Amino acid sequence: MAKENQFVNQIADIETDFPRWYTDVVIKTKLVDYGPVKGTMVIRPYGYAIWENIQRELDARIKATGHQNAYFPLLIPYSYMTREAEHVEGFAPEVAVVTVGGGETLAEPLVIRPTSETIFGEMYSKWLQSYRDLPILINQWANVMRWEKTTRPFLRTSEFLWQEGHTAHATEEEAMEETMKMLGVYKEFAETCLAIPVFTGKKTEKEKFAGALATFGMEAMMHDGKSLQAGTSHYMGQNFAKAFDIQFLDKDGTHKYAYTTSWGVSTRLIGALIMAHGDQRGLVLPPVVAPVQAIIVPIAAKKEGVLEAAAELKAKLTAAGVRADCDTSDNSPGWKFNEWEMKGVPVRIELGPRDIEAGKMVLVRRDTHEKTEAPLAAAAEAVQTLLADVQKNLLERARKRKEERVVTAESVEELLKGVEAGNFVKAGWCGCRECEDKIKEQTAASARVIVEEEHADKCCCCGKEAKHVVLFARAY
Amino acid sequence: MAKENQFVNQIADIETDFPRWYTDVVIKTKLVDYGPVKGTMVIRPYGYAIWENIQRELDARIKATGHQNAYFPLLIPYSYMTREAEHVEGFAPEVAVVTVGGGETLAEPLVIRPTSETIFGEMYSKWLQSYRDLPILINQWANVMRWEKTTRPFLRTSEFLWQEGHTAHATEEEAMEETMKMLGVYKEFAETCLAIPVFTGKKTEKEKFAGALATFGMEAMMHDGKSLQAGTSHYMGQNFAKAFDIQFLDKDGTHKYAYTTSWGVSTRLIGALIMAHGDQRGLVLPPVVAPVQAIIVPIAAKKEGVLEAAAELKAKLTAAGVRADCDTSDNSPGWKFNEWEMKGVPVRIELGPRDIEAGKMVLVRRDTHEKTEAPLAAAAEAVQTLLADVQKNLLERARKRKEERVVTAESVEELLKGVEAGNFVKAGWCGCRECEDKIKEQTAASARVIVEEEHADKCCCCGKEAKHVVLFARAY
Repeated sequence: MAKENQFVNQIADIETDFPRWYTDVVIKTKLVDYGPVKGTMVIRPYGYAIWENIQRELDARIKATGHQNAYFPLLIPYSYMTREAEHVEGFAPEVAVVTVGGGETLAEPLVIRPTSETIFGEMYSKWLQSYRDLPILINQWANVMRWEKTTRPFLRTSEFLWQEGHTAHATEEEAMEETMKMLGVYKEFAETCLAIPVFTGKKTEKEKFAGALATFGMEAMMHDGKSLQAGTSHYMGQNFAKAFDIQFLDKDGTHKYAYTTSWGVSTRLIGALIMAHGDQRGLVLPPVVAPVQAIIVPIAAKKEGVLEAAAELKAKLTAAGVRADCDTSDNSPGWKFNEWEMKGVPVRIELGPRDIEAGKMVLVRRDTHEKTEAPLAAAAEAVQTLLADVQKNLLERARKRKEERVVTAESVEELLKGVEAGNFVKAGWCGCRECEDKIKEQTAASARVIVEEEHADKCCCCGKEAKHVVLFARAY
Repeated sequence: MAKENQFVNQIADIETDFPRWYTDVVIKTKLVDYGPVKGTMVIRPYGYAIWENIQRELDARIKATGHQNAYFPLLIPYSYMTREAEHVEGFAPEVAVVTVGGGETLAEPLVIRPTSETIFGEMYSKWLQSYRDLPILINQWANVMRWEKTTRPFLRTSEFLWQEGHTAHATEEEAMEETMKMLGVYKEFAETCLAIPVFTGKKTEKEKFAGALATFGMEAMMHDGKSLQAGTSHYMGQNFAKAFDIQFLDKDGTHKYAYTTSWGVSTRLIGALIMAHGDQRGLVLPPVVAPVQAIIVPIAAKKEGVLEAAAELKAKLTAAGVRADCDTSDNSPGWKFNEWEMKGVPVRIELGPRDIEAGKMVLVRRDTHEKTEAPLAAAAEAVQTLLADVQKNLLERARKRKEERVVTAESVEELLKGVEAGNFVKAGWCGCRECEDKIKEQTAASARVIVEEEHADKCCCCGKEAKHVVLFARAY
């Protein structure tokens, strides 16, 4: 077996066994490992570095839109969960419960936050006095826990990391504006940083957040044509304000309930990255969030001056703001090429004695495998230009797929055919839960978002008048 | 009552009721609030921004010394705790235990991490194969939980935020070098960023981490002469390697146990900042970690051009990298002065019509209340110079206290007198636990660190030959 193929053979075929490909890639590239407790994951340094880059980029956007970070407690009194009827119904079955603390059985059991609307609600009720205190715009980066039956690293784990924004406003309009603003922030972030174009829209009643009046989601198309819910923004109306008594004294001298929102994205985004861009050789990481953007592989490293030149190049790139590294291990260049390809590094730089003599370097981009040369004297510019181009190309590639793989259906049979061929399917829907359930049952596809700007005559399921066009897909 | 004194009167007297002063300050400046579950805290935006600044500064240092971040699971199987005998004895009594997940009683109870040596150990055992994999240098930023009976915001809470580094090495020497290196990183960080000079040294057996061979700590002197343990670095020897089977194949072809370390600092550091620098008017924050470094207070804000000039000044300072803000609220200038003083902002800038006309601004530094003027044309330089000077002065002031308030004692009576007068006390100690316990009982002071470079003839307690000089203090 040719050395170059050893790595590829370690990874299951991406076209015929995508779930196995995913598991192979996340474990072999050391993004993640399984934790000792079922359903938990250890995010290893290579995976966590992606999360740090996601955090840095998204945190800057959250702050630029006027939000501040804070930290609320992990443990929530069980009774809080029950104050909002839909909320407890949705989350109570999947909470982890602390019943013993400091060697004693607790008077009231405590849940590990599955989400924090209730504890934010309790504190906002305490802090909010007058309309002058509004809006309250707080975000937190935290771990949360939901006891899941079927788990997969990043996609669905009992514990995961996320950010959750919780805001309170004086009016319905302002709260709805906030809900849509943050959905927009997520969309721009996904496209700019993750190179993932998304469908955004309102969720159906069945798919909305437990306790929200309306949930808006962003959905990303994966390599296999399935959808991944990559972020959500919820408009709560006064549901939580009434449950937690979040009132304020308005300008007109009367007390009113606030309108609240919440919105979040999680370490799921790492799963989205992997499944949106990966190929048979492994990960393909967008430069904006790649832990290593350029990997230098010295050729004939034992020859005089090669390692020195590689180190100098690394220093030059690092100084220019490129996340560069140099592989000085004992492995062969061929082995290194494959390993760094598997790890998805956007640009590989090959540097050997002849290159150094000629004052140049060889650049290989991960997305197209295209090989070019560039002068060492202009190394930083050349690499930065190439990184920008890789980022752009990944987005374009993903956008092309997103546009090409959407079909329409007039019947449930057509819908089934569409999703089986790896598409998202637009179809008319009457708006009733029965049809939504029936479609799910017969096609394994669910309503991802309502498509506001389009119109259909009939429901693809019951044939009655269509209320909405809905984007259906099988989903993670 | 003069308006200026209203705020001061809201805060208990710092000299006569320091504990109450502390509570008043942390609550009134909105650093923190009490969570609904006893012993928990909500870190509010103003407090969390300090933590973000601490994280940014310390994280850069942790990475510069070769460590990578990762994230390990919150929940640890109860049985892991019991594998290291001292460890379980130390931590089992204060853990929170999850017994129910997803509606079912768990087969094995899970503890919320009080610290993560055990779960890191388990994973390191799995990952470590050969000497080539060493050292493993991983850090995580996470929440941890210890069920405490008596709690105070930042100083001792059941849940807190921290970083915990866990490393594995091939030899005793390397592991010990790592232990001391990270203690050094903490000390430099505390002095440079928090303006808190610290005593560092080895802990006695009684005070060391449960499961460590040796613990090294840094101790900071607070306003009241009590000590606060601000960070620790532990040398584990092969204790955890044996308990979790962390072995590697060495160059000589034999399997060996690794040597491990761990080290951490927490949100306690925010408590240290408050108690080291605060004064009767409230917080005094070192510029490096202050959320707002310069607050602009417009004078006669309704006069034409004042708010515009203030906004322009804010933009100029922000562009120069100063964390500047402008108070445009309806409150009076006097009210604003007091509020921002209480919040500890290092530099206040007063800007009124006459200042603008004269092309200048008034600067008031928080540490000395000294008032100066500077030209608006050179605003950024003037503010940056002043901030650097405030940072320097806070460190010098704290250093002076740290040097002046250390006395020596030859007897337990002298030791008691020393700590009652608000000092740290150096005294000879025979090395036995009985004397250490007796000193604690009679003086309420504990052994903070062993002073390596000094010598005493006799133990202050039993009069037998002294083994060490120990720095004693009452501690938080």
